[in-house]
Amino acid sequence: PGKPRRMVAVRAETVNPGIRKTEDKVVDSVVVTELAKPTTAYCRCWRSGAFPLCDGTHLKHNKATGDNVGPLLLKKK
Amino acid sequence: PGKPRRMVAVRAETVNPGIRKTEDKVVDSVVVTELAKPTTAYCRCWRSGAFPLCDGTHLKHNKATGDNVGPLLLKKK
Ligand code: FES
Ligand code: FES
Repeated sequence: PGKPRRMVAVRAETVNPGIRKTEDKVVDSVVVTELAKPTTAYCRCWRSGAFPLCDGTHLKHNKATGDNVGPLLLKKK
Repeated sequence: PGKPRRMVAVRAETVNPGIRKTEDKVVDSVVVTELAKPTTAYCRCWRSGAFPLCDGTHLKHNKATGDNVGPLLLKKK
């Protein structure tokens, strides 16, 4: 498990390890006029237990892997 | 490069290989009242050349890796 092994793996890896794997492509829609809160966070790390919403799990993922991903925040104003 | 090697790599991998790596956590905000188009696609694969917008590169990523990720669609109605 040295450097070359890691470099190869990066390119071949999936982003989503487990969410809705029966779907060919996971696309979600938000009708923005229906947003209830001033700010709603949507997951981009594919680790949330509340996907497509962000539940904060990106923090654990970033810490475990050295990654720097975070949510998309939808704001009403 | 057999099965065990791949399984280990999955858990350790970053989701984002190259976008804004100087930032500790990449968070983007959208003021939804300012959306111009009826539908705007936001990237969740971290491969878009127009990040945080989706430019369709998820298709290439899915094909190359067997992944099933896609964008978040923001719709005005
Ligand atoms: S839990 Fe995935 S971005 Fe927050
Ligand atoms: S380019 Fe990333 S989801 Fe479309």
